Amino acid sequence: MIDFQKSGGLVPAIAQDHQTGEVLMMAWMNQEAFDETRRTGKAVYFSRSRNKLWRKGEESGHVQTVKGIFVDCDADTVLLKVDQIGGAACHEGYKSCFFRELAGEELKVVAERVFDPKAVYEK
Amino acid sequence: MIDFQKSGGLVPAIAQDHQTGEVLMMAWMNQEAFDETRRTGKAVYFSRSRNKLWRKGEESGHVQTVKGIFVDCDADTVLLKVDQIGGAACHEGYKSCFFRELAGEELKVVAERVFDPKAVYEK
Repeated sequence: MIDFQKSGGLVPAIAQDHQTGEVLMMAWMNQEAFDETRRTGKAVYFSRSRNKLWRKGEESGHVQTVKGIFVDCDADTVLLKVDQIGGAACHEGYKSCFFRELAGEELKVVAERVFDPKAVYEK
Repeated sequence: MIDFQKSGGLVPAIAQDHQTGEVLMMAWMNQEAFDETRRTGKAVYFSRSRNKLWRKGEESGHVQTVKGIFVDCDADTVLLKVDQIGGAACHEGYKSCFFRELAGEELKVVAERVFDPKAVYEK
């Protein structure tokens, strides 16, 4: 159903707000993460830096409830439509990880923080 | 500005309709593709299968006019907000490459074709 072999076991997975269409983040999935996402209805990714399953929200409580799973034409990218609990997907406290826009030679922050990362991750 | 080294020179680039928010496709960019996208205002990717720059729309005419470039928190993924000329990003003739939704064990086509691929690519 998904071609996990093409990219060495991992495929990109995009999470999008199912209501507003805002792109929240991009992460990676292996077969196990994909299967657990389908089974539980909550987004599970594979963390390349920690080299293990990443149950989104396991630390912050900001889980993503999956409303729909879409697959692209080449079957090597996944798009999740989600309900982002807590209102923010980004560990830096923004709704979307794409909170910076290129303006000339600068990256400009174009969103407001939903939460203070220190308060969420260092409790 | 973008961390191209982290993933061996290529970063994922998501194209989103700048008006509707629909996610159109996911492709890859190297430094050269990113620079040319910025310089020309039209989306340029790097094709892994053809191992060269892919000027989106060079064959079909379905170019993507870039309305904004966003960068994620880790600076290793790009989000383009685009105006999709011709109304379809997917080479299979659909507006979005994510035209199939997972329904049980099946991938179900949930969109309508905007164009006939044969008419566009075999003229």
